[in-house]
Amino acid sequence: MTTTAELLKTRTVGVCLLGHGIVGSGVVKILTQQREMLRQRTGLNFQIRHVIVRDPTRHSTLAGQLREATISVDATAAIDDPQTQVVLELMGGTTTAADCIQRALKLGKPVITANKSLLSTRGAELFALAKTYKTCIGFEASCGGGVPIVQSLIKGLAANRIDALVGIVNGTCNFILTQMTRLGWTYDAALAEAQKAGFAEADPALDVSGRDAAQKLALLASLAFNVRLGDGEISTEGIDRLQQTDIALAGEMGYVIKLLAIAERAGGSGDSADYLIARVHPTLVHKDDVLAEVGGSFNAISVFGHALGHALFYGRGAGQMPTASAVVSDLIGVALGSTLIEFSNLRIFPDTSPAARLLPFEQLQSRYYLRLSAKDEPGVLAQIALALGQHGISLSAIHQHETDQGQLVPVVITTHLANEGAMQAALRQINALSSIAPPAVLIRIIDQPREFAR
Amino acid sequence: MTTTAELLKTRTVGVCLLGHGIVGSGVVKILTQQREMLRQRTGLNFQIRHVIVRDPTRHSTLAGQLREATISVDATAAIDDPQTQVVLELMGGTTTAADCIQRALKLGKPVITANKSLLSTRGAELFALAKTYKTCIGFEASCGGGVPIVQSLIKGLAANRIDALVGIVNGTCNFILTQMTRLGWTYDAALAEAQKAGFAEADPALDVSGRDAAQKLALLASLAFNVRLGDGEISTEGIDRLQQTDIALAGEMGYVIKLLAIAERAGGSGDSADYLIARVHPTLVHKDDVLAEVGGSFNAISVFGHALGHALFYGRGAGQMPTASAVVSDLIGVALGSTLIEFSNLRIFPDTSPAARLLPFEQLQSRYYLRLSAKDEPGVLAQIALALGQHGISLSAIHQHETDQGQLVPVVITTHLANEGAMQAALRQINALSSIAPPAVLIRIIDQPREFAR
Repeated sequence: MTTTAELLKTRTVGVCLLGHGIVGSGVVKILTQQREMLRQRTGLNFQIRHVIVRDPTRHSTLAGQLREATISVDATAAIDDPQTQVVLELMGGTTTAADCIQRALKLGKPVITANKSLLSTRGAELFALAKTYKTCIGFEASCGGGVPIVQSLIKGLAANRIDALVGIVNGTCNFILTQMTRLGWTYDAALAEAQKAGFAEADPALDVSGRDAAQKLALLASLAFNVRLGDGEISTEGIDRLQQTDIALAGEMGYVIKLLAIAERAGGSGDSADYLIARVHPTLVHKDDVLAEVGGSFNAISVFGHALGHALFYGRGAGQMPTASAVVSDLIGVALGSTLIEFSNLRIFPDTSPAARLLPFEQLQSRYYLRLSAKDEPGVLAQIALALGQHGISLSAIHQHETDQGQLVPVVITTHLANEGAMQAALRQINALSSIAPPAVLIRIIDQPREFAR
Repeated sequence: MTTTAELLKTRTVGVCLLGHGIVGSGVVKILTQQREMLRQRTGLNFQIRHVIVRDPTRHSTLAGQLREATISVDATAAIDDPQTQVVLELMGGTTTAADCIQRALKLGKPVITANKSLLSTRGAELFALAKTYKTCIGFEASCGGGVPIVQSLIKGLAANRIDALVGIVNGTCNFILTQMTRLGWTYDAALAEAQKAGFAEADPALDVSGRDAAQKLALLASLAFNVRLGDGEISTEGIDRLQQTDIALAGEMGYVIKLLAIAERAGGSGDSADYLIARVHPTLVHKDDVLAEVGGSFNAISVFGHALGHALFYGRGAGQMPTASAVVSDLIGVALGSTLIEFSNLRIFPDTSPAARLLPFEQLQSRYYLRLSAKDEPGVLAQIALALGQHGISLSAIHQHETDQGQLVPVVITTHLANEGAMQAALRQINALSSIAPPAVLIRIIDQPREFAR
């Protein structure tokens, strides 16, 4: 449907691709296979000029496919080439990647990156550098894969004072938890399956420790709350010590266990409303909560805004094509110039935001799930209840299961809202009881607003 | 945290508000109560210069609240005022509203509107006019309330060839259906409750007939598929004849009934891939489908993209503050200039798109739910099965319930994929059977991709 006149107006945009791994090759796919669709939609003709790889001899197919591109190891020359107008940093890591991004920005060339590790630690510095050189950084692909959550926080929800952000932001962990929940698998079996299916790295530590989720939360919360927040400031607990027992017991009580990344205003009025609590940990979620339905490698991010109320963004949080979809979305905004306008003018990026005022994690108010292994002897429940009561914690439910597994009986307790510090103190006291076989298992419970009828 | 230097850079943007109804007063709330937050985030100081109402004497409180604004009936003068830089059309209707929008555009002033009725019929003309005068139209609020679905289709998902769009886009209908499903209410009782709760107009026809959903689908599909599509071209069936019986029977079979707006590629390869099918009708959705969980006045829009896969956008689809949230989001983009860039350059709006090539509704391939009232006599099921078989329709399940309600027995049939035209022909044949008390109830079933484990 493109007319000749329109074709004449097509503008070519030279792209330099740093890295040709999973995401990089997805970007190549979209830019080559959807070239005509993109040209019709945007009036832009994206031309890959450079692909930087470790070993060009291993990419002969790519060279045949991209006749106008140079496949090389020389990132510097590729970035400096006047025909490079946009740099896509998809190599990962935090050293060479940072050098390359800085080099591009200093030439005034916009950068698009999916590098959450880098941005969550050095984002403020890189954003400031981009502004100094009157250019911009696109990072939609760094959080939530193909889900346009970054763009939504930057603009779509900009009229809202955000009160909370609650997300499933790590597809690997969600895949593992889904297998454990729906198929009754152990953590080790589910992890092995995730690795086999390509959802987990050979070294899964970054994912299963919760650190990847914390990095994404740092970025998303900085946009939502207009603060500077490093992932190191986020209280983080992974899924690597989760036991099948707890998933099964939680299920009996109507809960599903999810790894949630949560940032919320600490509540209260006046000064305390400016404080945030930010945390990543396994969490009991009601089965009728929409987050409980998010299975496999999908991500979902709930945002609570003062005007919008509850909104949720759901989709593939990782993987080649979803992430490449986000990169190309950024590429369009950067090439058109709309991204630069928003990046330069909005004061919501970490470089212009004040440091987050975080409430210490001990001051969290939460409900808790507590599983104890108690000796089957008189008075144990009374001792536990006493320890909790002494710290001002009141119980919501107790389940003591019958067992023929010897002298240890599993006792599951859920609490009403309690203080994290008090809970930890009670837990130390309980673990020290001679009638308890430590360690007790403590998992937080989240109650999201019910929205059934209205 | 705003420094003096930053404050000095703040730019004032004069806003003219046409209409001070539900949404208009929500916009006033955000612009006044969140003025400081918006200024910090955007560097913009939105100043409401004019509010156009039917009877200014009834808005004395507003006049006190907005000291720098003129409250009047004179839209023309307000639009023409050099201090008006952006016009918000929130009066609704398609005559005066269109005149006002045209007047503003001809002055080169950007317009923001929530008016889906107007845009779904005259969008192409108005968009073209905006381009002639080098300005733009923001219409995030016209679909999905506060959910940034328009922005996501324009930019976030722009790298995707969209294959299908499936949405719950009318909060009134979803509220009524939720009450009927969860509380067992009749349609009339649920409608009365919706009216009482402010979710339905005194004249609910636009909503319950499915026409409002068709207007939104026309807009969303035009962006998703880059075609020009009027709501009159969309096959539309409302919820006003839905019976509690069918909701209950569907529930027994594991389905929930939702009013869905669906636009999808007609499938197949070659030429047929360019055809769309667009339709709005009550639909049986599996209980484990995420759309089944969307309750009350919430909206949810599923988008299936070739790169992204399945993504879903969920939130308040109507109501004062959610819609106002979308209006103010547009206001920010328009005032910064990023909206103009995307509006002018992207060729995805109805004015630059070719007319949609729609497959006739009779060529739809769907599964069906069919409820018949059959006389309790021998051979009836055989006659029904014969009628269906003669039209090439194969059955998936049959449920015949026992009854003590006299001679008529409810028979529920679900089919495998069948052709709509064949189904209608079979239905005519069945309705003509002497053993059947017409009319039979026919509801379409949707099977969305299962995404459980991965």
